[in-house]
Amino acid sequence: MEKLIIVKVGGGVLEDPATLNDFLNLFAAIPNKKILVHGGGRAATKLSKQLGIETKMVDGRRITDAETIKIVTMVYGGLINKNAVAALQAKGCNALGLTGVDMNLISAVKRPVAEIDYGLVGDVTSVNTFAFNLLLQADFIPVIAPITHDNKGQLLNTNADTVASSIATSLVNLYDVSLVYCFEKAGVLSDPDHEDSVIAELNFEMFQNYKKEGLIHSGMIPKLDNSFKALEMGVREVLITNASTLNSTKGTHLSL
Amino acid sequence: MEKLIIVKVGGGVLEDPATLNDFLNLFAAIPNKKILVHGGGRAATKLSKQLGIETKMVDGRRITDAETIKIVTMVYGGLINKNAVAALQAKGCNALGLTGVDMNLISAVKRPVAEIDYGLVGDVTSVNTFAFNLLLQADFIPVIAPITHDNKGQLLNTNADTVASSIATSLVNLYDVSLVYCFEKAGVLSDPDHEDSVIAELNFEMFQNYKKEGLIHSGMIPKLDNSFKALEMGVREVLITNASTLNSTKGTHLSL
Repeated sequence: MEKLIIVKVGGGVLEDPATLNDFLNLFAAIPNKKILVHGGGRAATKLSKQLGIETKMVDGRRITDAETIKIVTMVYGGLINKNAVAALQAKGCNALGLTGVDMNLISAVKRPVAEIDYGLVGDVTSVNTFAFNLLLQADFIPVIAPITHDNKGQLLNTNADTVASSIATSLVNLYDVSLVYCFEKAGVLSDPDHEDSVIAELNFEMFQNYKKEGLIHSGMIPKLDNSFKALEMGVREVLITNASTLNSTKGTHLSL
Repeated sequence: MEKLIIVKVGGGVLEDPATLNDFLNLFAAIPNKKILVHGGGRAATKLSKQLGIETKMVDGRRITDAETIKIVTMVYGGLINKNAVAALQAKGCNALGLTGVDMNLISAVKRPVAEIDYGLVGDVTSVNTFAFNLLLQADFIPVIAPITHDNKGQLLNTNADTVASSIATSLVNLYDVSLVYCFEKAGVLSDPDHEDSVIAELNFEMFQNYKKEGLIHSGMIPKLDNSFKALEMGVREVLITNASTLNSTKGTHLSL
């Protein structure tokens, strides 16, 4: 099967124009079929603040009320997405920017209210592999903002890591899929204060132990849970690495 | 050749949720291949105001500085575009929202500075008919926000009427193209104060005379200039009508 690389970029990488440009150069250089998924939470927080709207986060997840879904739709679906696509087009990459609502790419359900009401936040229910495959076969490069919909007209804010792993697992029957998470750290660190403590190879058992010992915690846990699930579901490799080392062997390689 | 309807909607129609929903119901009901182009100037002006950024207009055209291009990218490319797509998806229309940068759909050049420096405003230079045709042939419905790019990474604010007529004329060799401008008035009026003064049939000579007499003026002139140019370039029909009468014969029909 043909190789497909799904790259998720988030965090500080999107904030600094020079870092973003370097990253997009590396992404543009990937010779295989590819999809980019981006976040953009910090820019959304900044716009919320400018508009006098309070940002509420629980466990690193944004509580999304009616005003906040407008903001993330503008920032993720508009500002960040279209500027990334413009930059990629200038680098000769025939990108197009989409959200999960476009072509009905990613359907979701509003997260049920349990202890916390996250508001207009979506949990992915299905991915339109036909539409992704159509674009990929025509050599277009999808750039995906983490907004989904409920098929009843409501946009839903959705975690970008989950969007990336959902797309990855949906395409394993059509492509040999690799999933790469790029961020501002060098990989999964055994000591968060030392960038040189990157765990080069991390299997599921090691992950469970690191978690028990508290060496891996907070935001890294859902990212790794997603990643191991993706491996179980047929994604060939998952790499967690710095945005500046996208096309190298550096970073943390996951295995079951 | 197969029929293709290109509908441009703008002005007040986008501001009122009920009016917009009625319009989208009519658009969804069009049985032919179709493309929707939208504006959104009023919402951009509102967001600018909320952010304390002054809106400067000359002859109805927005002077677009670095901050303003961010705003229109968020509002046109994000907020309005994705909400329209979500609504259409809920109505069973397999829409996708794009700007001119996506798939390199619409290239432009920054308008040269003559008497007025419009800033980051684009004049359309080319339309990617291959990409539009690919989407149409796969039965997707493009929803286009009026942002283009210069192929060097710069987004450009572009008049939505021009975007619609440029797409229309680019597709005349592949489709039997109709272009419909929908807005809050009933059509081209011979007396702007009376909605019942709609000119049912307007040819080029009549247009020149109305213009001389001052009965057609301001924003309607570039719209009609665009429209007659589109007819000259092979678009089969141009209709200017109220958003609530999209699929009727009401409004102003243009002919050469």
